[in-house]
Amino acid sequence: MTTDDPASTDTRIAALEARLRHLEDVSAISQLVASYGPLVDAGDAERVAALWTEDGSYDVEGWHMASRAEVAAMVRSEAHQGLIGNGSSHFLGPAHVTIGADGDTAVAVCESVLLVQHKGHPVVARIGANLFELVRTPDGWQTTRRTTRGLDGSQGARDLLAGRVPPQ
Amino acid sequence: MTTDDPASTDTRIAALEARLRHLEDVSAISQLVASYGPLVDAGDAERVAALWTEDGSYDVEGWHMASRAEVAAMVRSEAHQGLIGNGSSHFLGPAHVTIGADGDTAVAVCESVLLVQHKGHPVVARIGANLFELVRTPDGWQTTRRTTRGLDGSQGARDLLAGRVPPQ
Amino acid sequence: MTTDDPASTDTRIAALEARLRHLEDVSAISQLVASYGPLVDAGDAERVAALWTEDGSYDVEGWHMASRAEVAAMVRSEAHQGLIGNGSSHFLGPAHVTIGADGDTAVAVCESVLLVQHKGHPVVARIGANLFELVRTPDGWQTTRRTTRGLDGSQGARDLLAGRVPPQ
Repeated sequence: MTTDDPASTDTRIAALEARLRHLEDVSAISQLVASYGPLVDAGDAERVAALWTEDGSYDVEGWHMASRAEVAAMVRSEAHQGLIGNGSSHFLGPAHVTIGADGDTAVAVCESVLLVQHKGHPVVARIGANLFELVRTPDGWQTTRRTTRGLDGSQGARDLLAGRVPPQ
Repeated sequence: MTTDDPASTDTRIAALEARLRHLEDVSAISQLVASYGPLVDAGDAERVAALWTEDGSYDVEGWHMASRAEVAAMVRSEAHQGLIGNGSSHFLGPAHVTIGADGDTAVAVCESVLLVQHKGHPVVARIGANLFELVRTPDGWQTTRRTTRGLDGSQGARDLLAGRVPPQ
Repeated sequence: MTTDDPASTDTRIAALEARLRHLEDVSAISQLVASYGPLVDAGDAERVAALWTEDGSYDVEGWHMASRAEVAAMVRSEAHQGLIGNGSSHFLGPAHVTIGADGDTAVAVCESVLLVQHKGHPVVARIGANLFELVRTPDGWQTTRRTTRGLDGSQGARDLLAGRVPPQ
Protein backbone atom coordinates (compact mmCIF):
# COMPACT_ATOMS: atom_id res chain seq x y z
CA MET A 1 0.00 0.00 0.00
CA THR A 2 1.40 3.40 -0.95
CA THR A 3 0.21 6.89 -0.29
CA ASP A 4 0.07 7.81 -3.95
CA ASP A 5 -3.36 6.26 -3.53
CA PRO A 6 -5.13 9.04 -1.64
CA ALA A 7 -8.37 7.09 -1.34
CA SER A 8 -6.61 4.41 0.63
CA THR A 9 -5.04 6.97 2.96
CA ASP A 10 -8.46 8.41 3.59
CA THR A 11 -9.94 5.00 4.19
CA ARG A 12 -7.24 4.04 6.63
CA ILE A 13 -7.58 7.28 8.57
CA ALA A 14 -11.36 6.95 8.72
CA ALA A 15 -11.02 3.37 9.99
CA LEU A 16 -8.60 4.53 12.67
CA GLU A 17 -10.98 7.29 13.72
CA ALA A 18 -13.88 4.88 14.09
CA ARG A 19 -11.86 2.29 16.00
CA LEU A 20 -10.32 4.90 18.27
CA ARG A 21 -13.72 6.39 19.01
CA HIS A 22 -15.03 2.98 20.05
CA LEU A 23 -12.08 2.45 22.36
CA GLU A 24 -12.43 5.95 23.83
CA ASP A 25 -16.09 5.20 24.55
CA VAL A 26 -15.31 1.93 26.37
CA SER A 27 -12.55 3.67 28.32
CA ALA A 28 -14.66 6.70 29.25
CA ILE A 29 -17.52 4.51 30.48
CA SER A 30 -15.14 2.25 32.41
CA GLN A 31 -13.67 5.33 34.02
CA LEU A 32 -17.11 6.72 34.88
CA VAL A 33 -18.03 3.48 36.65
CA ALA A 34 -14.60 3.34 38.36
CA SER A 35 -15.13 6.84 39.75
CA TYR A 36 -18.48 6.15 41.44
CA GLY A 37 -17.16 4.29 44.48
CA PRO A 38 -14.34 6.69 45.35
CA LEU A 39 -16.59 9.75 44.89
CA VAL A 40 -19.53 8.39 46.87
CA ASP A 41 -17.24 7.26 49.71
CA ALA A 42 -15.56 10.68 49.65
CA GLY A 43 -19.03 12.20 50.01
CA ASP A 44 -18.56 14.39 46.94
CA ALA A 45 -22.27 14.88 46.19
CA GLU A 46 -21.80 17.17 43.18
CA ARG A 47 -19.38 14.93 41.34
CA VAL A 48 -21.38 11.79 42.09
CA ALA A 49 -24.51 13.48 40.73
CA ALA A 50 -22.62 14.64 37.62
CA LEU A 51 -22.19 10.99 36.60
CA TRP A 52 -25.90 11.10 35.71
CA THR A 53 -27.82 13.17 33.17
CA GLU A 54 -29.95 15.93 34.66
CA ASP A 55 -32.96 13.61 34.78
CA GLY A 56 -31.03 10.36 35.12
CA SER A 57 -32.31 7.79 37.60
CA TYR A 58 -30.77 5.49 40.18
CA ASP A 59 -32.88 2.65 41.44
CA VAL A 60 -31.32 0.78 44.32
CA GLU A 61 -33.62 -1.50 46.29
CA GLY A 62 -36.16 0.63 48.03
CA TRP A 63 -34.53 3.91 47.06
CA HIS A 64 -35.49 5.45 43.73
CA MET A 65 -33.74 8.63 42.68
CA ALA A 66 -35.09 10.36 39.58
CA SER A 67 -32.63 13.21 38.95
CA ARG A 68 -29.17 14.51 39.62
CA ALA A 69 -30.60 16.52 42.49
CA GLU A 70 -31.98 13.38 44.10
CA VAL A 71 -28.69 11.53 43.67
CA ALA A 72 -26.88 14.46 45.33
CA ALA A 73 -29.46 14.43 48.12
CA MET A 74 -28.80 10.73 48.71
CA VAL A 75 -25.07 11.45 49.13
CA ARG A 76 -25.90 14.25 51.57
CA SER A 77 -28.50 12.19 53.45
CA GLU A 78 -28.04 11.30 57.09
CA ALA A 79 -27.98 7.62 56.18
CA HIS A 80 -25.12 7.97 53.68
CA GLN A 81 -23.20 10.48 55.80
CA GLY A 82 -23.42 8.06 58.72
CA LEU A 83 -21.98 5.32 56.55
CA ILE A 84 -19.01 7.32 55.27
CA GLY A 85 -18.46 9.10 58.57
CA ASN A 86 -17.85 5.67 60.00
CA GLY A 87 -15.87 4.48 56.97
CA SER A 88 -17.27 2.59 53.98
CA SER A 89 -16.22 1.23 50.63
CA HIS A 90 -18.63 1.01 47.75
CA PHE A 91 -16.33 -1.31 45.86
CA LEU A 92 -17.34 -1.71 42.21
CA GLY A 93 -15.64 -4.24 39.98
CA PRO A 94 -14.34 -3.53 36.48
CA ALA A 95 -17.23 -2.67 34.16
CA HIS A 96 -18.16 -4.75 31.15
CA VAL A 97 -19.22 -2.23 28.51
CA THR A 98 -21.41 -2.72 25.44
CA ILE A 99 -21.80 0.21 23.05
CA GLY A 100 -25.21 0.26 21.35
CA ALA A 101 -25.63 -0.13 17.61
CA ASP A 102 -26.39 3.58 17.30
CA GLY A 103 -23.00 4.39 18.84
CA ASP A 104 -24.48 6.94 21.23
CA THR A 105 -25.92 4.73 23.96
CA ALA A 106 -24.31 2.01 26.02
CA VAL A 107 -24.82 -0.46 28.81
CA ALA A 108 -22.24 -1.28 31.50
CA VAL A 109 -22.46 -4.15 33.96
CA CYS A 110 -20.48 -4.79 37.12
CA GLU A 111 -20.72 -6.45 40.48
CA SER A 112 -20.27 -4.51 43.71
CA VAL A 113 -19.44 -5.15 47.32
CA LEU A 114 -20.37 -2.76 50.09
CA LEU A 115 -17.96 -2.89 53.02
CA VAL A 116 -18.60 -0.93 56.21
CA GLN A 117 -16.87 -0.52 59.53
CA HIS A 118 -18.64 -2.35 62.32
CA LYS A 119 -17.22 -2.05 65.83
CA GLY A 120 -13.86 -1.09 64.37
CA HIS A 121 -13.69 -3.93 61.85
CA PRO A 122 -14.53 -3.87 58.14
CA VAL A 123 -17.35 -6.24 57.24
CA VAL A 124 -19.11 -7.12 54.00
CA ALA A 125 -22.59 -5.64 54.26
CA ARG A 126 -23.94 -6.32 50.76
CA ILE A 127 -23.09 -7.79 47.38
CA GLY A 128 -24.81 -6.39 44.34
CA ALA A 129 -25.49 -6.46 40.61
CA ASN A 130 -25.29 -3.17 38.74
CA LEU A 131 -26.46 -2.16 35.29
CA PHE A 132 -25.73 1.32 33.99
CA GLU A 133 -27.55 2.68 30.92
CA LEU A 134 -25.59 5.53 29.43
CA VAL A 135 -25.82 8.16 26.74
CA ARG A 136 -23.25 10.26 24.90
CA THR A 137 -23.77 13.94 25.70
CA PRO A 138 -21.86 17.07 24.68
CA ASP A 139 -20.18 16.74 28.11
CA GLY A 140 -19.21 13.10 27.62
CA TRP A 141 -20.91 9.88 28.63
CA GLN A 142 -23.50 10.12 31.40
CA THR A 143 -25.80 7.69 33.15
CA THR A 144 -29.48 7.84 32.20
CA ARG A 145 -30.42 5.02 34.53
CA ARG A 146 -28.65 2.80 36.99
CA THR A 147 -30.29 -0.24 38.51
CA THR A 148 -28.73 -2.04 41.47
CA ARG A 149 -30.03 -5.21 43.11
CA GLY A 150 -28.69 -7.33 45.92
CA LEU A 151 -27.20 -10.64 44.84
CA ASP A 152 -29.60 -12.82 46.77
CA GLY A 153 -30.47 -15.37 44.11
CA SER A 154 -33.35 -13.33 42.68
CA GLN A 155 -33.93 -13.39 38.93
CA GLY A 156 -33.90 -9.60 38.84
CA ALA A 157 -30.29 -9.37 39.99
CA ARG A 158 -29.22 -12.14 37.64
CA ASP A 159 -30.92 -10.42 34.69
CA LEU A 160 -28.89 -7.30 35.38
CA LEU A 161 -25.64 -9.31 35.39
CA ALA A 162 -26.59 -10.84 32.05
CA GLY A 163 -26.95 -7.29 30.68
CA ARG A 164 -30.72 -7.40 30.30
CA VAL A 165 -32.08 -3.89 30.65
CA PRO A 166 -34.96 -3.98 33.15
CA PRO A 167 -38.45 -2.82 32.11
CA GLN A 168 -39.26 0.81 32.94
CA MET B 1 6.23 17.29 8.92
CA THR B 2 4.13 17.85 5.80
CA THR B 3 2.02 15.48 3.78
CA ASP B 4 3.85 16.20 0.56
CA ASP B 5 6.04 13.46 2.01
CA PRO B 6 3.80 10.46 1.36
CA ALA B 7 6.23 8.02 2.96
CA SER B 8 5.95 9.81 6.25
CA THR B 9 2.16 9.82 6.06
CA ASP B 10 2.24 6.09 5.49
CA THR B 11 4.65 5.56 8.34
CA ARG B 12 2.57 7.58 10.74
CA ILE B 13 -0.63 5.75 9.79
CA ALA B 14 1.06 2.36 10.13
CA ALA B 15 2.39 3.33 13.56
CA LEU B 16 -1.09 4.39 14.63
CA GLU B 17 -2.57 1.13 13.37
CA ALA B 18 -0.06 -0.93 15.35
CA ARG B 19 -0.48 1.09 18.55
CA LEU B 20 -4.26 1.06 18.27
CA ARG B 21 -4.30 -2.68 17.72
CA HIS B 22 -2.25 -3.21 20.87
CA LEU B 23 -4.63 -1.05 22.88
CA GLU B 24 -7.65 -2.82 21.41
CA ASP B 25 -6.14 -6.14 22.44
CA VAL B 26 -5.56 -5.05 26.03
CA SER B 27 -9.07 -3.62 26.18
CA ALA B 28 -10.73 -6.69 24.66
CA ILE B 29 -8.96 -9.03 27.07
CA SER B 30 -9.73 -6.79 30.05
CA GLN B 31 -13.37 -6.82 28.98
CA LEU B 32 -13.38 -10.60 28.59
CA VAL B 33 -12.08 -11.04 32.12
CA ALA B 34 -14.51 -8.39 33.44
CA SER B 35 -17.43 -10.29 31.92
CA TYR B 36 -16.69 -13.64 33.57
CA GLY B 37 -18.02 -12.83 37.05
CA PRO B 38 -21.29 -11.21 35.95
CA LEU B 39 -22.01 -13.99 33.45
CA VAL B 40 -21.20 -16.86 35.78
CA ASP B 41 -23.26 -15.30 38.60
CA ALA B 42 -26.11 -14.75 36.14
CA GLY B 43 -25.87 -18.44 35.27
CA ASP B 44 -25.48 -17.73 31.56
CA ALA B 45 -23.78 -21.02 30.66
CA GLU B 46 -23.50 -20.35 26.93
CA ARG B 47 -21.88 -16.96 27.24
CA VAL B 48 -19.52 -18.09 29.98
CA ALA B 49 -18.43 -21.02 27.80
CA ALA B 50 -17.94 -18.70 24.81
CA LEU B 51 -15.12 -16.96 26.70
CA TRP B 52 -13.07 -20.10 25.98
CA THR B 53 -11.96 -21.68 22.72
CA GLU B 54 -13.82 -24.86 21.78
CA ASP B 55 -11.16 -26.97 23.50
CA GLY B 56 -10.09 -24.39 26.07
CA SER B 57 -9.53 -25.55 29.64
CA TYR B 58 -10.36 -24.25 33.10
CA ASP B 59 -8.49 -25.75 35.99
CA VAL B 60 -9.81 -24.65 39.36
CA GLU B 61 -8.66 -26.67 42.37
CA GLY B 62 -10.08 -30.11 42.03
CA TRP B 63 -12.23 -29.28 39.02
CA HIS B 64 -10.68 -29.60 35.59
CA MET B 65 -12.75 -28.62 32.59
CA ALA B 66 -11.29 -29.40 29.18
CA SER B 67 -13.72 -27.80 26.73
CA ARG B 68 -16.43 -25.21 26.28
CA ALA B 69 -18.99 -27.94 26.84
CA GLU B 70 -17.44 -28.80 30.22
CA VAL B 71 -17.35 -25.15 31.25
CA ALA B 72 -21.04 -24.83 30.34
CA ALA B 73 -21.76 -28.02 32.30
CA MET B 74 -20.05 -26.52 35.36
CA VAL B 75 -22.33 -23.46 35.17
CA ARG B 76 -25.38 -25.75 34.87
CA SER B 77 -24.18 -28.08 37.64
CA GLU B 78 -26.15 -28.49 40.83
CA ALA B 79 -23.22 -27.12 42.82
CA HIS B 80 -23.02 -23.87 40.83
CA GLN B 81 -26.81 -23.48 40.55
CA GLY B 82 -27.05 -23.85 44.32
CA LEU B 83 -24.49 -21.10 44.75
CA ILE B 84 -26.16 -18.59 42.44
CA GLY B 85 -29.68 -19.59 43.50
CA ASN B 86 -28.67 -18.48 46.94
CA GLY B 87 -26.76 -15.43 45.68
CA SER B 88 -23.05 -15.28 44.92
CA SER B 89 -20.43 -12.93 43.55
CA HIS B 90 -17.41 -14.21 41.67
CA PHE B 91 -15.66 -10.88 42.02
CA LEU B 92 -12.64 -10.60 39.74
CA GLY B 93 -10.28 -7.65 39.98
CA PRO B 94 -9.01 -5.62 37.03
CA ALA B 95 -6.87 -7.81 34.77
CA HIS B 96 -3.20 -7.14 34.14
CA VAL B 97 -2.67 -8.06 30.49
CA THR B 98 0.55 -8.98 28.68
CA ILE B 99 0.38 -9.47 24.91
CA GLY B 100 2.85 -12.08 23.66
CA ALA B 101 5.71 -11.23 21.32
CA ASP B 102 3.84 -12.89 18.45
CA GLY B 103 0.93 -10.51 18.97
CA ASP B 104 -1.64 -13.30 18.82
CA THR B 105 -1.39 -14.79 22.29
CA ALA B 106 -1.66 -13.16 25.69
CA VAL B 107 -1.68 -13.75 29.41
CA ALA B 108 -3.96 -11.98 31.88
CA VAL B 109 -3.62 -12.09 35.66
CA CYS B 110 -6.07 -11.04 38.34
CA GLU B 111 -7.10 -11.79 41.88
CA SER B 112 -10.61 -12.90 42.76
CA VAL B 113 -12.88 -13.04 45.76
CA LEU B 114 -15.82 -15.40 45.99
CA LEU B 115 -18.63 -14.04 48.14
CA VAL B 116 -21.68 -16.13 48.97
CA GLN B 117 -24.81 -15.68 51.04
CA HIS B 118 -24.70 -17.60 54.29
CA LYS B 119 -27.76 -17.44 56.54
CA GLY B 120 -28.82 -14.23 54.83
CA HIS B 121 -25.44 -12.52 55.12
CA PRO B 122 -22.73 -12.18 52.46
CA VAL B 123 -19.46 -13.79 53.50
CA VAL B 124 -16.08 -14.18 51.85
CA ALA B 125 -15.74 -17.84 50.94
CA ARG B 126 -12.50 -17.82 48.98
CA ILE B 127 -9.70 -15.61 47.67
CA GLY B 128 -7.93 -16.67 44.51
CA ALA B 129 -5.19 -16.16 41.95
CA ASN B 130 -6.16 -16.37 38.28
CA LEU B 131 -4.09 -16.69 35.15
CA PHE B 132 -5.77 -16.63 31.76
CA GLU B 133 -3.92 -17.76 28.63
CA LEU B 134 -5.58 -16.35 25.55
CA VAL B 135 -5.42 -16.51 21.81
CA ARG B 136 -6.64 -14.21 19.04
CA THR B 137 -9.30 -15.98 16.95
CA PRO B 138 -11.45 -14.85 14.03
CA ASP B 139 -14.15 -14.25 16.69
CA GLY B 140 -11.88 -12.18 18.92
CA TRP B 141 -9.78 -13.09 21.93
CA GLN B 142 -10.67 -16.35 23.67
CA THR B 143 -9.28 -18.27 26.61
CA THR B 144 -7.25 -21.38 25.83
CA ARG B 145 -6.56 -22.12 29.46
CA ARG B 146 -7.46 -20.61 32.80
CA THR B 147 -5.83 -21.68 36.02
CA THR B 148 -7.23 -20.63 39.39
CA ARG B 149 -5.72 -21.39 42.79
CA GLY B 150 -6.74 -20.41 46.27
CA LEU B 151 -4.53 -17.77 47.88
CA ASP B 152 -3.38 -19.90 50.78
CA GLY B 153 0.32 -19.16 50.72
CA SER B 154 1.13 -21.94 48.25
CA GLN B 155 3.82 -21.35 45.66
CA GLY B 156 1.43 -22.38 42.88
CA ALA B 157 -0.94 -19.51 43.56
CA ARG B 158 1.90 -17.04 43.89
CA ASP B 159 3.42 -18.19 40.60
CA LEU B 160 0.13 -17.44 38.84
CA LEU B 161 0.08 -13.93 40.30
CA ALA B 162 3.61 -13.35 39.05
CA GLY B 163 2.37 -14.27 35.55
CA ARG B 164 4.26 -17.57 35.35
CA VAL B 165 2.34 -19.93 33.08
CA PRO B 166 1.99 -23.25 34.89
CA PRO B 167 3.37 -26.45 33.33
CA GLN B 168 0.84 -28.46 31.33
CA MET C 1 -13.03 15.26 3.03
CA THR C 2 -10.50 14.15 0.42
CA THR C 3 -6.79 13.53 0.61
CA ASP C 4 -6.00 15.97 -2.17
CA ASP C 5 -5.99 18.32 0.82
CA PRO C 6 -2.72 17.33 2.49
CA ALA C 7 -3.17 19.78 5.35
CA SER C 8 -6.33 18.04 6.42
CA THR C 9 -4.65 14.63 6.26
CA ASP C 10 -1.92 15.96 8.52
CA THR C 11 -4.42 17.47 10.90
CA ARG C 12 -6.40 14.27 11.13
CA ILE C 13 -3.31 12.17 11.77
CA ALA C 14 -2.06 14.59 14.42
CA ALA C 15 -5.45 14.48 16.16
CA LEU C 16 -5.39 10.68 16.12
CA GLU C 17 -1.88 10.66 17.56
CA ALA C 18 -2.89 12.95 20.43
CA ARG C 19 -6.08 11.02 21.22
CA LEU C 20 -4.32 7.68 21.05
CA ARG C 21 -1.55 8.90 23.33
CA HIS C 22 -4.11 9.96 25.92
CA LEU C 23 -5.81 6.58 25.77
CA GLU C 24 -2.46 4.76 25.99
CA ASP C 25 -1.64 6.79 29.09
CA VAL C 26 -4.91 5.94 30.82
CA SER C 27 -4.46 2.29 29.89
CA ALA C 28 -0.83 2.11 31.01
CA ILE C 29 -1.63 3.68 34.38
CA SER C 30 -4.66 1.43 34.87
CA GLN C 31 -2.45 -1.55 34.12
CA LEU C 32 0.24 -0.36 36.54
CA VAL C 33 -2.32 -0.10 39.34
CA ALA C 34 -3.86 -3.47 38.37
CA SER C 35 -0.45 -5.12 38.63
CA TYR C 36 0.31 -3.99 42.18
CA GLY C 37 -1.91 -6.47 44.03
CA PRO C 38 -0.87 -9.58 42.09
CA LEU C 39 2.83 -8.69 42.30
CA VAL C 40 2.82 -7.83 46.00
CA ASP C 41 0.85 -11.00 46.85
CA ALA C 42 3.28 -13.00 44.71
CA GLY C 43 6.10 -11.47 46.73
CA ASP C 44 7.87 -10.21 43.62
CA ALA C 45 9.86 -7.45 45.35
CA GLU C 46 11.73 -6.26 42.26
CA ARG C 47 8.69 -5.86 40.06
CA VAL C 48 6.67 -4.22 42.83
CA ALA C 49 9.49 -1.73 43.38
CA ALA C 50 9.74 -1.05 39.65
CA LEU C 51 6.24 0.45 39.74
CA TRP C 52 7.87 3.43 41.50
CA THR C 53 10.53 5.88 40.33
CA GLU C 54 13.94 5.38 41.94
CA ASP C 55 13.07 7.88 44.66
CA GLY C 56 9.32 7.35 44.63
CA SER C 57 7.52 7.13 47.96
CA TYR C 58 4.80 4.97 49.44
CA ASP C 59 3.10 6.24 52.56
CA VAL C 60 0.77 3.72 54.12
CA GLU C 61 -0.36 4.46 57.66
CA GLY C 62 2.66 4.26 59.87
CA TRP C 63 4.96 2.95 57.17
CA HIS C 64 6.73 5.48 55.00
CA MET C 65 8.91 4.20 52.18
CA ALA C 66 11.01 6.77 50.37
CA SER C 67 12.58 4.83 47.50
CA ARG C 68 12.34 1.75 45.31
CA ALA C 69 14.77 0.05 47.66
CA GLU C 70 12.51 0.69 50.63
CA VAL C 71 9.46 -0.59 48.76
CA ALA C 72 11.38 -3.77 47.86
CA ALA C 73 12.45 -4.09 51.51
CA MET C 74 8.79 -3.88 52.59
CA VAL C 75 7.91 -6.78 50.26
CA ARG C 76 10.82 -8.77 51.67
CA SER C 77 10.03 -7.87 55.28
CA GLU C 78 9.05 -10.50 57.80
CA ALA C 79 5.66 -8.82 58.23
CA HIS C 80 4.80 -8.98 54.52
CA GLN C 81 6.29 -12.45 54.02
CA GLY C 82 4.21 -13.68 56.94
CA LEU C 83 1.09 -12.28 55.29
CA ILE C 84 1.67 -13.84 51.87
CA GLY C 85 3.09 -17.06 53.30
CA ASN C 86 -0.28 -17.49 54.93
CA GLY C 87 -2.19 -16.25 51.88
CA SER C 88 -3.35 -12.69 51.26
CA SER C 89 -5.05 -10.58 48.65
CA HIS C 90 -4.26 -6.91 48.26
CA PHE C 91 -7.34 -6.37 46.14
CA LEU C 92 -7.29 -3.02 44.35
CA GLY C 93 -10.31 -1.78 42.44
CA PRO C 94 -10.22 -0.33 38.92
CA ALA C 95 -8.25 2.93 38.91
CA HIS C 96 -9.79 6.26 38.03
CA VAL C 97 -7.08 8.10 36.12
CA THR C 98 -6.63 11.83 35.52
CA ILE C 99 -3.82 12.95 33.23
CA GLY C 100 -2.37 16.33 34.23
CA ALA C 101 -2.58 19.37 31.99
CA ASP C 102 1.11 19.01 31.15
CA GLY C 103 0.47 15.52 29.79
CA ASP C 104 3.41 14.03 31.67
CA THR C 105 2.01 13.65 35.19
CA ALA C 106 -1.12 11.91 36.39
CA VAL C 107 -3.15 10.96 39.42
CA ALA C 108 -4.94 7.64 39.89
CA VAL C 109 -7.45 6.84 42.61
CA CYS C 110 -8.83 3.52 43.73
CA GLU C 111 -10.22 1.74 46.74
CA SER C 112 -8.63 -1.40 48.12
CA VAL C 113 -9.54 -4.33 50.32
CA LEU C 114 -6.95 -6.40 52.15
CA LEU C 115 -8.04 -9.99 52.67
CA VAL C 116 -5.99 -12.40 54.73
CA GLN C 117 -6.32 -16.01 55.83
CA HIS C 118 -7.24 -16.34 59.49
CA LYS C 119 -7.52 -19.84 60.93
CA GLY C 120 -8.04 -21.21 57.44
CA HIS C 121 -10.72 -18.72 56.42
CA PRO C 122 -10.34 -15.56 54.34
CA VAL C 123 -11.33 -12.42 56.24
CA VAL C 124 -11.41 -8.74 55.38
CA ALA C 125 -8.64 -7.10 57.36
CA ARG C 126 -8.73 -3.56 55.98
CA ILE C 127 -10.43 -1.27 53.50
CA GLY C 128 -8.45 1.58 52.06
CA ALA C 129 -8.26 4.70 49.93
CA ASN C 130 -5.35 4.97 47.49
CA LEU C 131 -3.98 7.89 45.54
CA PHE C 132 -1.12 7.36 43.10
CA GLU C 133 0.87 10.30 41.74
CA LEU C 134 2.64 9.30 38.55
CA VAL C 135 5.10 10.61 36.03
CA ARG C 136 5.93 9.68 32.45
CA THR C 137 9.51 8.39 32.23
CA PRO C 138 11.57 6.98 29.35
CA ASP C 139 10.58 3.56 30.78
CA GLY C 140 6.87 4.35 30.89
CA TRP C 141 4.65 5.64 33.67
CA GLN C 142 5.95 5.23 37.20
CA THR C 143 4.71 6.18 40.65
CA THR C 144 6.37 9.14 42.31
CA ARG C 145 4.20 8.91 45.41
CA ARG C 146 1.45 6.65 46.65
CA THR C 147 -0.63 7.49 49.69
CA THR C 148 -2.90 4.91 51.30
CA ARG C 149 -5.23 5.48 54.23
CA GLY C 150 -7.70 3.21 55.96
CA LEU C 151 -11.33 3.99 55.23
CA ASP C 152 -12.33 4.79 58.79
CA GLY C 153 -14.29 7.96 58.25
CA SER C 154 -11.25 10.25 58.50
CA GLN C 155 -11.07 13.29 56.28
CA GLY C 156 -7.63 12.23 55.05
CA ALA C 157 -8.92 9.05 53.45
CA ARG C 158 -11.89 10.84 51.94
CA ASP C 159 -9.65 13.53 50.46
CA LEU C 160 -7.63 10.84 48.68
CA LEU C 161 -10.80 9.35 47.20
CA ALA C 162 -11.83 12.76 45.93
CA GLY C 163 -8.48 12.95 44.13
CA ARG C 164 -7.00 15.67 46.33
CA VAL C 165 -3.24 15.30 46.42
CA PRO C 166 -2.14 15.39 50.06
CA PRO C 167 0.34 18.03 51.26
CA GLN C 168 3.99 16.92 51.26
